[in-house]
Amino acid sequence: MSPHSVARWDIFEFSSQGPAEGNPYLDVSFGAVFRLANREVRVPGFYDGDGTYRVRFCPDTEGDWSFVTTSSSTALDGLTGAFRATAPRPGVHGPVRVRNQFHFAYADGTPYLPFGTTCYAWTHQTPEMQEQTLTTLAAAPFNKIRMGVFPKDYIYNTNEPLHDVFEKRADGSHDLDRPNFASFRHFETQIGRLAEMGIEADVILFHPYDRWGYCTMTEEQDFRYLAYVVARLAACRNVWWSLANEYDFLLDTKPMARWDQFFQIIEEGDPLRHPKSIHNGDPAKNYNHRQPWVDHACIQNWDVKKTTDWREAYGKPVINDEPEYEGDIPKHWGNIDAHELINRYWLTLCRGGYIGHGESFMHENDELWWAKGGVLRGEAPPRIAFMRKLLEEDIQNGLTPMNEPGSSVFRRVSLARDGDVRIIYFSEHQPAEWALGMPEEDGDYDIDLIDVWNMTVTPLEKAGLPRVHPQRTAGGAIITNQVKAAFGLKLPGKPYLAVRVRPRRST
Amino acid sequence: MSPHSVARWDIFEFSSQGPAEGNPYLDVSFGAVFRLANREVRVPGFYDGDGTYRVRFCPDTEGDWSFVTTSSSTALDGLTGAFRATAPRPGVHGPVRVRNQFHFAYADGTPYLPFGTTCYAWTHQTPEMQEQTLTTLAAAPFNKIRMGVFPKDYIYNTNEPLHDVFEKRADGSHDLDRPNFASFRHFETQIGRLAEMGIEADVILFHPYDRWGYCTMTEEQDFRYLAYVVARLAACRNVWWSLANEYDFLLDTKPMARWDQFFQIIEEGDPLRHPKSIHNGDPAKNYNHRQPWVDHACIQNWDVKKTTDWREAYGKPVINDEPEYEGDIPKHWGNIDAHELINRYWLTLCRGGYIGHGESFMHENDELWWAKGGVLRGEAPPRIAFMRKLLEEDIQNGLTPMNEPGSSVFRRVSLARDGDVRIIYFSEHQPAEWALGMPEEDGDYDIDLIDVWNMTVTPLEKAGLPRVHPQRTAGGAIITNQVKAAFGLKLPGKPYLAVRVRPRRST
Repeated sequence: MSPHSVARWDIFEFSSQGPAEGNPYLDVSFGAVFRLANREVRVPGFYDGDGTYRVRFCPDTEGDWSFVTTSSSTALDGLTGAFRATAPRPGVHGPVRVRNQFHFAYADGTPYLPFGTTCYAWTHQTPEMQEQTLTTLAAAPFNKIRMGVFPKDYIYNTNEPLHDVFEKRADGSHDLDRPNFASFRHFETQIGRLAEMGIEADVILFHPYDRWGYCTMTEEQDFRYLAYVVARLAACRNVWWSLANEYDFLLDTKPMARWDQFFQIIEEGDPLRHPKSIHNGDPAKNYNHRQPWVDHACIQNWDVKKTTDWREAYGKPVINDEPEYEGDIPKHWGNIDAHELINRYWLTLCRGGYIGHGESFMHENDELWWAKGGVLRGEAPPRIAFMRKLLEEDIQNGLTPMNEPGSSVFRRVSLARDGDVRIIYFSEHQPAEWALGMPEEDGDYDIDLIDVWNMTVTPLEKAGLPRVHPQRTAGGAIITNQVKAAFGLKLPGKPYLAVRVRPRRST
Repeated sequence: MSPHSVARWDIFEFSSQGPAEGNPYLDVSFGAVFRLANREVRVPGFYDGDGTYRVRFCPDTEGDWSFVTTSSSTALDGLTGAFRATAPRPGVHGPVRVRNQFHFAYADGTPYLPFGTTCYAWTHQTPEMQEQTLTTLAAAPFNKIRMGVFPKDYIYNTNEPLHDVFEKRADGSHDLDRPNFASFRHFETQIGRLAEMGIEADVILFHPYDRWGYCTMTEEQDFRYLAYVVARLAACRNVWWSLANEYDFLLDTKPMARWDQFFQIIEEGDPLRHPKSIHNGDPAKNYNHRQPWVDHACIQNWDVKKTTDWREAYGKPVINDEPEYEGDIPKHWGNIDAHELINRYWLTLCRGGYIGHGESFMHENDELWWAKGGVLRGEAPPRIAFMRKLLEEDIQNGLTPMNEPGSSVFRRVSLARDGDVRIIYFSEHQPAEWALGMPEEDGDYDIDLIDVWNMTVTPLEKAGLPRVHPQRTAGGAIITNQVKAAFGLKLPGKPYLAVRVRPRRST
């Protein structure tokens, strides 16, 4: 590939030498305007140490792009260049964005169903452990990972990070006005490796679990750091912005107005408009996800039957990134069993939301996946792989709950459809007969029984509708309330099963 | 036993012949005043057909009682008699009443932990099936049964009752001013048999599942019927009054004021003050259980983690009489699996409430326990027996949740204590280490691990407290948040376990 050519959705980078004296992180502005025909895109650049300045651009359109730099330094101002954006490499679909109000797709229109996991500080572990994490991810069912720019100080997380994020002074404190460029280079290298694996990086920008001073920077430092991260990473097609892990535990140092402002800073520096969200700690302190700068509601809540409530409350995609983790640590958020986590997956998806994975098993060397990566020890991942594969076969627009507000049935059994594909999940319910959610018009259907734990798919035959009996309603009318369905099903009377119904496909 | 002697909490009955012409049910009042020393108890009597009038009295105090009748008929007015109330028969503990605000005890002070079941129309089935029900109950773990005065018209319930409750006219309609005395005699016989088995009869007085006209009587007919039932049954020590199954589905014919009035009518005719409650259909239409005439909150709700909310809302004992049934019918309330029902039992009890059983498996002859009794087919009853036996070993005052309002842990793990006995239920959580809820003072404790499904009790040893790490709070303070406990536990990292801790008992 010629240096003057870059594939669509890959990264074009321009770098130049400029002033190295003083503190260019504070003092020197740098950026570029990229042009294609009559279109202009303003892109911030960044200082990368040793007098090197860079600007990165991800072309979202094929064609002949040119650019001109802008800088407070005359040496860096007005530099020009050009490149050709060519067709994307095979398997590259572009950045993920919201589609159909409650769902996601890649920029090329390929549906994206988020099946994420969480390794908060994996890029801060030893190089060997990071390689192990990537090896694990290559075989795992995850296409998104939540990961922090900053390292983590918390129980089971007492080691020092591979790189300081800001420069350490002689007294051990950190100079929050001097980034450690090696740290950021490492972080974006790992994001790039994830991109090549087809994994979105849900980058957590702030969090409270800190002993280095990173969570108590001044407003000016916060804004500068955030703009810097955005300038470095926004050209990575697989980046998502998660403003925080548990923002509400930081309100004492970062008041709400600052969080709102963070969203604006990201928007200014992110021409691709990657998905932006913010994660809360206290379930009663959800950020106001209705605000227009929030792309999807990031939820921490174990009570996943509320997924439809969150959809209705926020009118956006719902990703429950922390529905509790498979594990056995004493923390209630980190010790549910795999059956229950898989149950929560099916409940959430069949109510029109998405859900994320985490794993936190006690380990003699404190190597817990949730924070450090490494290897997976649980029983959930193969079942998540099964579910993902199964849904990716069918889902084009996203699952919409077949919900009747106020219906007691729909609060118990989960029914969703995407066009003419229907999925019903029974969780702890085990009816031997069923009809609700079946097509109203008869026809040739493939009907399958899905055992979500044992990962089997077994064909089912149509059966008659369940018997009905006249019944009094609250208003006094006596009605015979047959479900509107062309046929019923006979089911085995076991729990944790799903049914999939779709028009028969030619073989 | 002499006819002039009756054991305390048994039934003294006085009968006399009186007018048989016309409709004595409408026209003739009858009752008696019972006296012990300076105490007077007014007791309503009732007409039992063929010119026979009866009044029943359950002496709550030993001693020499006398009575004098009152009636609108001179033949029945001013009749007198006397009897001696002697010590209760062995095993008779008197009626159940609320104790310790959220709990129950028999009148003699013996704790009563309700472990009820539901067979709405069992007394309306064939005599053979009723015998089968009683045989089943004799071996089952239930000490309360929900049962309707009226038969049931509903899916799987299409048979005619053994007895009409009111007289049938030639045209097949029912004369709602003429009770079928045989029906009431049969009903109270069965209540008496339950009493001898130690089972409380939670008598459902109205319900909407009707094709005989019983649910649409006039206000006058309702009031008369209710007073009549109370006159007949109130002397049965094991009666509870459940005003309705799903009262809110009858609001079109019985407005709210009538339900309130029903409670007053019961109070007037029930000197023993049996427990009174009312059961709703729509979970959003709970009756206002705070009203003083309601003794305990009868709940229909699958979401049993809300048990502490109901306790707080109503300030009374909570019995979730319909937390969904073990079964496989297409109705969502009747098809959960036994594991989940047992999970709901432990969740509810360890949050300071009580919970009821029901079973609804499809059956070729529509013999579903929930409505008809017969035999039990599920896997839950042995686990309920295990739980009941285990709790009855320890519980004296009732379980009080060790709740910290707003604590996210307490919404997930269920912790309760009765004095120095502590029970912690982990449901889907499987910590390998635990300390929350352990005693703050060290000492000699018996600690046991309870497998609620496999019904095993295994001794545990004390272990050290889980590790802790300094952590930032929402206010910015850094605290090291060790649980206040004298010791911790090592647990096997499996779900659906409980832990019981109690002072070591001398052997």
